[in-house]
Amino acid sequence: MTPQQDPVTAKLAAYIVNAKSEDLPVSVRAEAVRTFVNWVGCAVGGSRHEAVEAALAALGPFAGPPRASVLGRSERVDPLLASLLNGISSHVFDFDDTHLRTVIHPAGPVASALLAFAEHQEVRGEDFVHALVLGVETECRIGNAVFPAHYDIGWHITGSAGVFGAAAAVGKLLDLDAQRMAWALGLAATQPVGLREMFGSMTKSFHPGRAAQNGMTAALLAARGYTSSEQALEARRGWLNVLSASHDSREITEGLGERYEISVNSYKPFACGIVIHPVIDACLQLRQRENLDCETVRSVDLRVHPLVLELTGKTEPRSGLEGKFSVYHAAAVALREGDGGERQFSDLAVLDPATVSLRRRVTATVDPTLEADAARVEIELADGRRLRLQVEHAIGSMHRPMSNSDLEHKFIGLSEDILGQARTRRLLDACWQIEHVEDVAAIAAAART
Amino acid sequence: MTPQQDPVTAKLAAYIVNAKSEDLPVSVRAEAVRTFVNWVGCAVGGSRHEAVEAALAALGPFAGPPRASVLGRSERVDPLLASLLNGISSHVFDFDDTHLRTVIHPAGPVASALLAFAEHQEVRGEDFVHALVLGVETECRIGNAVFPAHYDIGWHITGSAGVFGAAAAVGKLLDLDAQRMAWALGLAATQPVGLREMFGSMTKSFHPGRAAQNGMTAALLAARGYTSSEQALEARRGWLNVLSASHDSREITEGLGERYEISVNSYKPFACGIVIHPVIDACLQLRQRENLDCETVRSVDLRVHPLVLELTGKTEPRSGLEGKFSVYHAAAVALREGDGGERQFSDLAVLDPATVSLRRRVTATVDPTLEADAARVEIELADGRRLRLQVEHAIGSMHRPMSNSDLEHKFIGLSEDILGQARTRRLLDACWQIEHVEDVAAIAAAART
Repeated sequence: MTPQQDPVTAKLAAYIVNAKSEDLPVSVRAEAVRTFVNWVGCAVGGSRHEAVEAALAALGPFAGPPRASVLGRSERVDPLLASLLNGISSHVFDFDDTHLRTVIHPAGPVASALLAFAEHQEVRGEDFVHALVLGVETECRIGNAVFPAHYDIGWHITGSAGVFGAAAAVGKLLDLDAQRMAWALGLAATQPVGLREMFGSMTKSFHPGRAAQNGMTAALLAARGYTSSEQALEARRGWLNVLSASHDSREITEGLGERYEISVNSYKPFACGIVIHPVIDACLQLRQRENLDCETVRSVDLRVHPLVLELTGKTEPRSGLEGKFSVYHAAAVALREGDGGERQFSDLAVLDPATVSLRRRVTATVDPTLEADAARVEIELADGRRLRLQVEHAIGSMHRPMSNSDLEHKFIGLSEDILGQARTRRLLDACWQIEHVEDVAAIAAAART
Repeated sequence: MTPQQDPVTAKLAAYIVNAKSEDLPVSVRAEAVRTFVNWVGCAVGGSRHEAVEAALAALGPFAGPPRASVLGRSERVDPLLASLLNGISSHVFDFDDTHLRTVIHPAGPVASALLAFAEHQEVRGEDFVHALVLGVETECRIGNAVFPAHYDIGWHITGSAGVFGAAAAVGKLLDLDAQRMAWALGLAATQPVGLREMFGSMTKSFHPGRAAQNGMTAALLAARGYTSSEQALEARRGWLNVLSASHDSREITEGLGERYEISVNSYKPFACGIVIHPVIDACLQLRQRENLDCETVRSVDLRVHPLVLELTGKTEPRSGLEGKFSVYHAAAVALREGDGGERQFSDLAVLDPATVSLRRRVTATVDPTLEADAARVEIELADGRRLRLQVEHAIGSMHRPMSNSDLEHKFIGLSEDILGQARTRRLLDACWQIEHVEDVAAIAAAART
């Protein structure tokens, strides 16, 4: 006998099914567009990464009708495979959006599924934006319900919760009824993706991609009457209990339609794990303020939030990917090169002897009094002088969000090498206008080379 | 600082890579062939189930080059989709094989992946059998390491461990080196499938199918250099720790190549959860011994192993699928119809008023002194007489395995309605001869209509 559970799966499904686009506040729509712009830029920027090349080489021979775009590339594949590939490329630089409370990267699973689906079946921009909001709402609320226990034990929450977001979003466009929406959530629940052990390998970026593909698969199956549990979240052996030592299911249903998780989405100014951003920000500010010459730096002492060393404590990174998990590299490269973009996390940058030498003079200490978006840097110079700087709220955090102009700058930096200047501008304009587009497939097409 | 772990992932990968077909004992090969025969029969038999129809309707439009067979049907799809569909059909009747120690259904994930792969790249029968043995070894040893904690918390172990089996088996055929085999296991670890909450819906049979598809995907990606963790099992945030409250990783590596888990595979005589088989066996024996007329039955009292009520305690099943999870229905229908095949677990059979009436006179009590393959039945007749029978070891258990002739009988019963008598005979003969086949794709072709 199981005690009667709050039927959160059914409640969530009913909300998704009944939600109307015209009820979305203007600010929520605007944030959804910013989320989309940021995601497209990341996906185009990552499209030449060897992870995308490897996945395309491995799975391309199994691809179905080539109806969907691989952003930033010339190949077309079937929409399910496109959702995987675009999910990989959008995350492979660790440069995508972050829901700070759960460290979910919301767009990867949801937008990757939606855009590929929009090349399978015509979707109006307004409906696309609505589905994006609902997908992000679904994954982030489920994330809220299990964070931090679920993440702490080792799930890469972007994949494990993201699959629900993709299922909800595509299910909305498929116009599922409440029962089939519940089945779609059930089919999503049974195929979570992502262990944190994979961080530092290409498999990390596989997670949002596979979550997108699994979620779309779930919605497509449910639409054809493939049955599943209707209590997949709250059941005794459902997702919440099996994948998390503790949870609060009220996070999933309370205030649905009143507040929106996409409103607190954030965008990264730097191409690495968000927990290092305050350190990079501090190093960049200090470098500029002091007109710093790294030759004169004797030591760099960082004071950081506890998560920083847990997630990014690699002292001797051996590749660009590993560099994203090294606060030591991040500090050194920011001080030397004055930036924290993708170039600073290339293999070349990580192995640069001068950066390695400086990196080995960096120490980091946990300071539990610091907020997650704060950091302190103290530099000792060869002449004994000490320089100090504290960042209270890193750029890109909720207190210092990136402006639309910052997002454009980031997009252009990611896209121009791939699409060229003119196409990048056209694509960017189309993305900003997505709410008014008749057929979203046109945006995907504009992102092909 | 994590304490140094036993590198079980690397050890397992090295074993799979280095294993040689000629080292397999004859008895192990023979059991692998029996496993394959039983799996083909189940897949053909289940091929018209509405779960397969729904999955094909939903995902067929995304299928790639139609190189692979959907067993028992005319459609061809790409090998990845074929692995999913054949995995679904092979499990949808709950009639497939069982590794009793872990309740893994070993063939579903592994054979579904292998046969579809054999239509992508030519595979000799001997290599196929070897890969099947290694895949089953991999999934069952990983299952042994985490059973029962992993299953108890709610994972459908056939999907969650099965994905490793599919990755190992396809990885062997792809001739991966040890590092890439470890990556394949890593990519498998990060996409486990299956919550037990899904039991009773079509999603249960999705699990072995998706495990096959995910495992094949993992091996294909690793073959193209898609990197992953090389400590996916034993790492602090690896599969063993994240998906199970306790584990013994020695189960994975001790005695590799000395004993084989496929040697203890078992095959179901009845089309439902194996835990009910002793009850069905007892009811059938009692019915035959007493020439029983169900009209005269006042009550049926079952004494069962504790797992029976935990897994199959549904008192009022409303469909064929739910009937498979009702020991009450199983006893009633066995007593009335004298069999426990797929027909006895159809919607019609479950809703038959006479069976429903008898079912409501069935009670079941847990007896912790009973072994899992034992059961006691006591029937009280209208005239007050009491009939008793105890089964010590159900047919199909390790103590009373099905003979090759029993397996043929089962295969024919599953296949003849689909393929007809002559084609069924030819397919069966081809399956028994698989070790000597030059190109396994011929067997898949023989299973198409």
